[in-house]
Amino acid sequence: MATSTVDELKKGPLHGVTVLDFSRVLAGPYCTMVLADLGARVIKVEKIGTGDDTREFGPFVEKESVYFSCFNRNKESIVLDIKSPRDREMLERLLDEADVLVENFRPGVMERLGYGPERLAQTHPHLIYSSISGFGHSGPYSELPGYDMVVQAMGGIMSLTGYPNAEPARVGTSFGDLGAALFAVIGIISALYSRTKDAQGTRVDIGMLDCQAALMETALARYDVENKVPTRTGDCHPSLAPFESFQAKDGKIVIAAGNDTLFMLVAEVLGNPGLAMDPRFLTNDLRCQNRPDMVREMEALLQKQPIQYWIDALNEEGVPCAPINTIDKVLDHPQLASRDMIVQVQGQSEKPFKTAGNPIKMTGVVDLDPNKPISAPGLGQHTEAIIAELMSRHNAYSFSGTDAESES
Amino acid sequence: MATSTVDELKKGPLHGVTVLDFSRVLAGPYCTMVLADLGARVIKVEKIGTGDDTREFGPFVEKESVYFSCFNRNKESIVLDIKSPRDREMLERLLDEADVLVENFRPGVMERLGYGPERLAQTHPHLIYSSISGFGHSGPYSELPGYDMVVQAMGGIMSLTGYPNAEPARVGTSFGDLGAALFAVIGIISALYSRTKDAQGTRVDIGMLDCQAALMETALARYDVENKVPTRTGDCHPSLAPFESFQAKDGKIVIAAGNDTLFMLVAEVLGNPGLAMDPRFLTNDLRCQNRPDMVREMEALLQKQPIQYWIDALNEEGVPCAPINTIDKVLDHPQLASRDMIVQVQGQSEKPFKTAGNPIKMTGVVDLDPNKPISAPGLGQHTEAIIAELMSRHNAYSFSGTDAESES
Repeated sequence: MATSTVDELKKGPLHGVTVLDFSRVLAGPYCTMVLADLGARVIKVEKIGTGDDTREFGPFVEKESVYFSCFNRNKESIVLDIKSPRDREMLERLLDEADVLVENFRPGVMERLGYGPERLAQTHPHLIYSSISGFGHSGPYSELPGYDMVVQAMGGIMSLTGYPNAEPARVGTSFGDLGAALFAVIGIISALYSRTKDAQGTRVDIGMLDCQAALMETALARYDVENKVPTRTGDCHPSLAPFESFQAKDGKIVIAAGNDTLFMLVAEVLGNPGLAMDPRFLTNDLRCQNRPDMVREMEALLQKQPIQYWIDALNEEGVPCAPINTIDKVLDHPQLASRDMIVQVQGQSEKPFKTAGNPIKMTGVVDLDPNKPISAPGLGQHTEAIIAELMSRHNAYSFSGTDAESES
Repeated sequence: MATSTVDELKKGPLHGVTVLDFSRVLAGPYCTMVLADLGARVIKVEKIGTGDDTREFGPFVEKESVYFSCFNRNKESIVLDIKSPRDREMLERLLDEADVLVENFRPGVMERLGYGPERLAQTHPHLIYSSISGFGHSGPYSELPGYDMVVQAMGGIMSLTGYPNAEPARVGTSFGDLGAALFAVIGIISALYSRTKDAQGTRVDIGMLDCQAALMETALARYDVENKVPTRTGDCHPSLAPFESFQAKDGKIVIAAGNDTLFMLVAEVLGNPGLAMDPRFLTNDLRCQNRPDMVREMEALLQKQPIQYWIDALNEEGVPCAPINTIDKVLDHPQLASRDMIVQVQGQSEKPFKTAGNPIKMTGVVDLDPNKPISAPGLGQHTEAIIAELMSRHNAYSFSGTDAESES
């Protein structure tokens, strides 16, 4: 299945790869969205009647779910009735041609449907069979349902996010789903790479909780070594200072100057070079220890001018800094625009909407075109075309069979 | 360079791939750590004298940085003096043998050193040249310094994280660095895959800000469609209810029951099935609208029993739920243990410490062994061995040259 019925122009690094996508909601669809952005052909197998649950998730544009369209751009949709023998036969043909299978059901579901990894390893040994689940397909928790919120709580990130004297906060995006999705993509593509050498498929088993642990940076090690439980630090880095937000005249600004040279530059820009010579602030360690003093001294100066004044002055000296942008500012950000990072997607309605594009920029490779709306499929939109394609291929195969000449 | 001086047993999917790693601090080293976990040989090129800045970052075990060891496990370290002609010659030889180059300097630095992507595309067209920077190597912001804290502020995640009536919070892990690292890994491996077909290297250019935008889930689209700026939601999902934390008798518990069936089960477990019939709570949309009432009604019941009671009862019915674990609980989590997700790393000291392992579980592939400490290299530990290896290979090459027979 080297060609695509959606777009003949895909020439990303995964061009020629076919992904059979049984996944729904977020982690799986985000994973296959990244694969599609890189040029893979993604055929989304949806359940008869309702399809992916997120087709019902708001907000909507002319009754089309923006949520669904966001993560299912550039895919094809086929509806199959898993109980119908004809559709099961179709599925076998699709599996013959697929390079990758992605699913994010609870462990056991695919087995009950007859498409478990053990069976497919026998019948389709070339296939890269990829599962994303809350806890992975082994271990005492594997049968439990694991949603983003559950693994954010269980995996430790909530205990580290928010202010020390307030309740733990959720990361404001589905960090549990998206982290797992990215590790799944990595597993899948590395398996594709490995398959070029030995022609063998494999099983990739991603647990969202595992991924949360892998994304805890040094927190686990710090606890193991220091025996102090790391906790929330609000808006500042736990071991760098200044590395936090400060009140300027008209709002908050982040300054990230974790070494002494940068702090000297900050002190100069703020108009008080002596700050960097203050015995309380001489080193990063001292600045961490005396953080409240440092913030007070810096804010006394920062409050004299507005955010943009400080951004310009700090940038001039090469000090890392930023306004705390709200989402409207992100959507209109000149850097993101110049990097083709804001694209348009549309479902079956006529009205496209904006969302983020593909952050993997590769020289000489077609990127998503920000000026051309990318379509997300209607439920079963490609069923007929895909079946016709399979049938014609099947007939072609029969032609080359032993009795093809006498029967043609 | 198919063999490794560190560990002959690596047989991950990237076994046989050599990565020349010029990166420092976090995003680059995390990227190459994932590549090493998957079996690649990673040669870390460190600057003479001090090496990677993070060798000075605390905490320390017997003067060895835990921070450095965390992200540089299973790599080799070579120290080269970029100003010495002999070392520059060595570097050319290393580039001849490398499949992937990773760097995370500010744009322009590699060019000034003489190792910019344009030059290497000419002399080493097989190479996958991967850069990670704050804003990518194009656009009006490309020259600005971009640290994790800067892109968390600029990219929108801080505006979405924390409680609505409090200040924006930082994600409690370096979401800006780690997100970019994962997209870089995806770009690199997909380029390796593509290279198996056309034998051509490529350039992968990852901007941390781009990656932040890509990880905003539906926030950009929601703003574009609804024209309301999404904001912080504390501990709850913006459009699902119940999907948040609740006060039980002895602490907080997360319950994630975003559909009506699950909410019915929650109501039953809580001992008041009527809650699911309450006109205020009949649908997810109604529960979102009447969230404060829903929380009040649920907490009145939840406060009668401790967390573990509810976890057991909710798990019994298949309702997604979790305690909000602190890092000590994560380190001792039975599911993570059973998935080989807690491994030991040690620097040059004798004392290993624990950190998270590799979340990409692949059937038939060697995983990190939780019982065997994985070493992180001392500064320049492998310089001599790598140079000897290059020399012997070079001599072998000369042997097969035109005048090898007469000169040997």
